[in-house]
Amino acid sequence: MRATLLYQAGDVRVEDVDDPKIQNPTDAVIRIVLACVCGSDLWPYKSQPLTDDPRHMGHEFLGVVEETGTEVTRVRRGDVVVVPFTYADNTCAYCRQGLQTSCTHGGQWGVGGVDGGQGQAARVPYADGTLVKLPVAEDSELLPDLLTLSDVLCTGYHAARTAGVKPGDSVTVIGDGAVGLSAVISAKLLGAERIILMGRHTQRTDLGRDFGATDVVADRGEDGVAAVRELTGGFGTERVLECVGLEDALVQGVGVVRNGGVISRVGVPQYPGVPFGFPEFLRNITLTGGVAPARAYMEDLMPHIISGEIHPGRVFDRTVGLEEIAEGYRLMNDREALKTLVRP
Amino acid sequence: MRATLLYQAGDVRVEDVDDPKIQNPTDAVIRIVLACVCGSDLWPYKSQPLTDDPRHMGHEFLGVVEETGTEVTRVRRGDVVVVPFTYADNTCAYCRQGLQTSCTHGGQWGVGGVDGGQGQAARVPYADGTLVKLPVAEDSELLPDLLTLSDVLCTGYHAARTAGVKPGDSVTVIGDGAVGLSAVISAKLLGAERIILMGRHTQRTDLGRDFGATDVVADRGEDGVAAVRELTGGFGTERVLECVGLEDALVQGVGVVRNGGVISRVGVPQYPGVPFGFPEFLRNITLTGGVAPARAYMEDLMPHIISGEIHPGRVFDRTVGLEEIAEGYRLMNDREALKTLVRP
Repeated sequence: MRATLLYQAGDVRVEDVDDPKIQNPTDAVIRIVLACVCGSDLWPYKSQPLTDDPRHMGHEFLGVVEETGTEVTRVRRGDVVVVPFTYADNTCAYCRQGLQTSCTHGGQWGVGGVDGGQGQAARVPYADGTLVKLPVAEDSELLPDLLTLSDVLCTGYHAARTAGVKPGDSVTVIGDGAVGLSAVISAKLLGAERIILMGRHTQRTDLGRDFGATDVVADRGEDGVAAVRELTGGFGTERVLECVGLEDALVQGVGVVRNGGVISRVGVPQYPGVPFGFPEFLRNITLTGGVAPARAYMEDLMPHIISGEIHPGRVFDRTVGLEEIAEGYRLMNDREALKTLVRP
Repeated sequence: MRATLLYQAGDVRVEDVDDPKIQNPTDAVIRIVLACVCGSDLWPYKSQPLTDDPRHMGHEFLGVVEETGTEVTRVRRGDVVVVPFTYADNTCAYCRQGLQTSCTHGGQWGVGGVDGGQGQAARVPYADGTLVKLPVAEDSELLPDLLTLSDVLCTGYHAARTAGVKPGDSVTVIGDGAVGLSAVISAKLLGAERIILMGRHTQRTDLGRDFGATDVVADRGEDGVAAVRELTGGFGTERVLECVGLEDALVQGVGVVRNGGVISRVGVPQYPGVPFGFPEFLRNITLTGGVAPARAYMEDLMPHIISGEIHPGRVFDRTVGLEEIAEGYRLMNDREALKTLVRP
């Protein structure tokens, strides 16, 4: 089959790789119908040194079950399924508490002999635990929306959930990428009344307004902090959703959070530590968030998509075929695209 | 009156200072009956450079109201009152949400013309907001227990509350100082079933066992982490109360916290930032806590003392007169005393 490999920064290739097959009785093999490029794919795309052992890319995908191992009982051939961005048995102690990203049997796509999601097919470990059946056909117009359950919507939702967003809250969302926009959707779903979106790409922040942002602050750094404080009577907001992953964004979060408030970070940290010392201690600021256990949220969020209440697939503004995926990466890396859909 | 001044590291003196008087209609003046030395007093005691403008020390005290300003209505002359370690109006937006340490009119004892608590008397700003009336006489045997409401018990309780300790939980408490021991009391009050106390001073950890610790780990660093993990099936505990304030203790907290768990820090941070990067992100670890809004907890905790359910005053293992307070500092700094009571 054809699959996406990253050889070094900027060098994405689609090549022939071994077809996936059942290796364990708990495996399934799926034919991939829809995939996409994640903001987090751009970190290695920007930085990976040249290698002979290229990275298998992609971790957001959905498809149709083609084959199942003998112990798989919850899905069967022909089911349309969406795949969370880490696989998990969904039965271990961590999974039972809703932290499938720490599953004792789980792992990442594209690592250690496991397929990536930007290809024609994939072997899915722990298929019963990992896969979530979709109540639509593979030609449904809702597929792009449902694909966001794989990662980006659940990541934004994780930010809002771990920040404790509740009805009536004021929330600042830092970052107008697809995760930030998903955080806006999520904060609104959880009842936030005021959602201040910090971002400076008008097309994106306009979409953020459609999703529920009540205010947009284009300034960054000290000016951005001052603007949010002005909007909030000088206090800042009690919840801040940090959807970037850079230390500057976190520092901005410290600037806009109200004393006693919570910063939830879901942008993959590109920093070794956080500037939480004595001043933040005096202000009683909480830092929470982390990698999103998408599997914990998919079934809760799906009905909002099926009903048409939310339309998170609007974050996809480009579509490429698998063979053109390198262009999809480039578009996102150059900020010409917000998020690229891939049709294998 | 006589009061405690710190001129430089190790140089504590008791000297004559101006008697306190009412300056604002919201002030009260109290005669101090009981005070103590705080672990946080030891940071300047260890490090302060020589100064002509010595620091007025002390922020944990209780006493008897001697005089009140014209606008004070909630306390009156003769009332026995305990004082939280920061003063607050108890009416501003922060106070109403229980974050009196961020009170817009509040502040610290011993700073900016406000008296310290290690003296014979003190002017109390915002007396109606700050002071909490005690239902005992000034010769009550419960006074040392009630004095802990001023800071140390509430600080331990803040750790347990912000960590979200609930019935049945497993909790690790890092540090066997008076705050750590108060955190043990608090975790037990909130229903924790397993309380692992990390500390290596047997006398203190024995008291910790009396207070409710179910396990004691004397090892520190990697050995300590390994010991806690062995006690918890390899997982660590979901709640960690960091009661030291050194980066090593925080790193130990990261080592013993379960994935998806919470570290609450209440030790005053002696570090500029925390090592929360990619690994902690992947593990979904939350960092919370901060300076304790003692005023928010005093009335809730007092009944447990009055009823005899808890006996937090056992952390005091030495008593000195005010004139001997320098020896009280030395005893604590040299770890010959756990916590020193001061009788002015």
